Amino acid sequence: MREVFQQELAEVQDRLVELAELVAESIDKATRAFHQSEVSLAEEVIASDNFIDQRTVALDELAITILARQQPVARDLRIVVSALRISASLERMGDMSTHIAQLARYRFPDKVVPKSLRSTFAEMGQLDVEIARKLVELLRTEDAQLAEEIRNDDDKVDALHLVVFDKVLGETWKGEAVDTVDATLASRYHERFADHAVSIAKKVQYLVTGDWDPEKSAN
Amino acid sequence: MREVFQQELAEVQDRLVELAELVAESIDKATRAFHQSEVSLAEEVIASDNFIDQRTVALDELAITILARQQPVARDLRIVVSALRISASLERMGDMSTHIAQLARYRFPDKVVPKSLRSTFAEMGQLDVEIARKLVELLRTEDAQLAEEIRNDDDKVDALHLVVFDKVLGETWKGEAVDTVDATLASRYHERFADHAVSIAKKVQYLVTGDWDPEKSAN
Repeated sequence: MREVFQQELAEVQDRLVELAELVAESIDKATRAFHQSEVSLAEEVIASDNFIDQRTVALDELAITILARQQPVARDLRIVVSALRISASLERMGDMSTHIAQLARYRFPDKVVPKSLRSTFAEMGQLDVEIARKLVELLRTEDAQLAEEIRNDDDKVDALHLVVFDKVLGETWKGEAVDTVDATLASRYHERFADHAVSIAKKVQYLVTGDWDPEKSAN
Repeated sequence: MREVFQQELAEVQDRLVELAELVAESIDKATRAFHQSEVSLAEEVIASDNFIDQRTVALDELAITILARQQPVARDLRIVVSALRISASLERMGDMSTHIAQLARYRFPDKVVPKSLRSTFAEMGQLDVEIARKLVELLRTEDAQLAEEIRNDDDKVDALHLVVFDKVLGETWKGEAVDTVDATLASRYHERFADHAVSIAKKVQYLVTGDWDPEKSAN
């Protein structure tokens, strides 16, 4: 029974890695669509979100089946419950990619953000892509160093999120209302994407260290 | 054992109702703070978010304990897993209230939104408050009619969300960039608040009807 359970847990882990890979591909395409105004890439991201949702549901069903069949307790139970939460966060990360791609599509053939913000968003996008790639490796290897790096990258994304607001609310901002709306939403989506990754990294860290602290598990 | 399990499920339900009540109080205060620029109400909402987070963690711990002790299967298992998901959505609704309150506090003593948008936001805020109250009753009574009403109210919130963008992007918009940013974020928070309620309503409906459709459970 124990061996079957370990195999099933390995299957859950494989599926989480697969889901994270789909999300990494999605944010990579979404940020390229956003910066280069490539509408076909945006369409690909939007079309693939449904597949990410389906894979999330399938993963959740597998986790529920394991709960029913294996009746895990203690740490094993927490691993399965964490998998359910991690999949929910990955699904939301896919949604954030999709929102970024939608902004690119709405404004096509124009670019979404005015010149003065392009380098800031390029940096945010690059960080989100790196975070997603690190998340794939973190889920695969459970290397605590990666969790730490994801947290540091998220701090950088948060700082850039504030830079966007400083620029938009600064005296030199020449954008129209539409640019202001787009910059506000795009910045929020990039920032939330990274937040979800940190939330996942925390859960992986608890599982690795065995140091489960309910106080820290709210996010 | 079965009787103990039913008692424990009733306890989970009570705690979900309690959490929903906290969220209803939070959004009520947040929208009043937002419209009347009452900074003390905004502070109350921001301070209470930590308590909502704590109650969410406590509820999740209870659900995990039930999974470990009672080893539920089939529908009983889905009820407990759904409780975990519902609590996560309620926690996010509390976050949305807090974000709305934070906007009110940042702009104090000014009002957050310019006159031309006040009636739209007043309506959105009122709908969010009603949705939260209906959610309390839905979780208490499992009355399917309430789930339907929440969905209809959410459609109205979505329509108002579009009205905000139409106004902000319209030719008569006289707002500064700061007004545009605030309106964009505030509208997004109001809209997400209602989305989470719909997601909860769907889960309650599945539980009541027993008609579990994994395809529909992604959100």
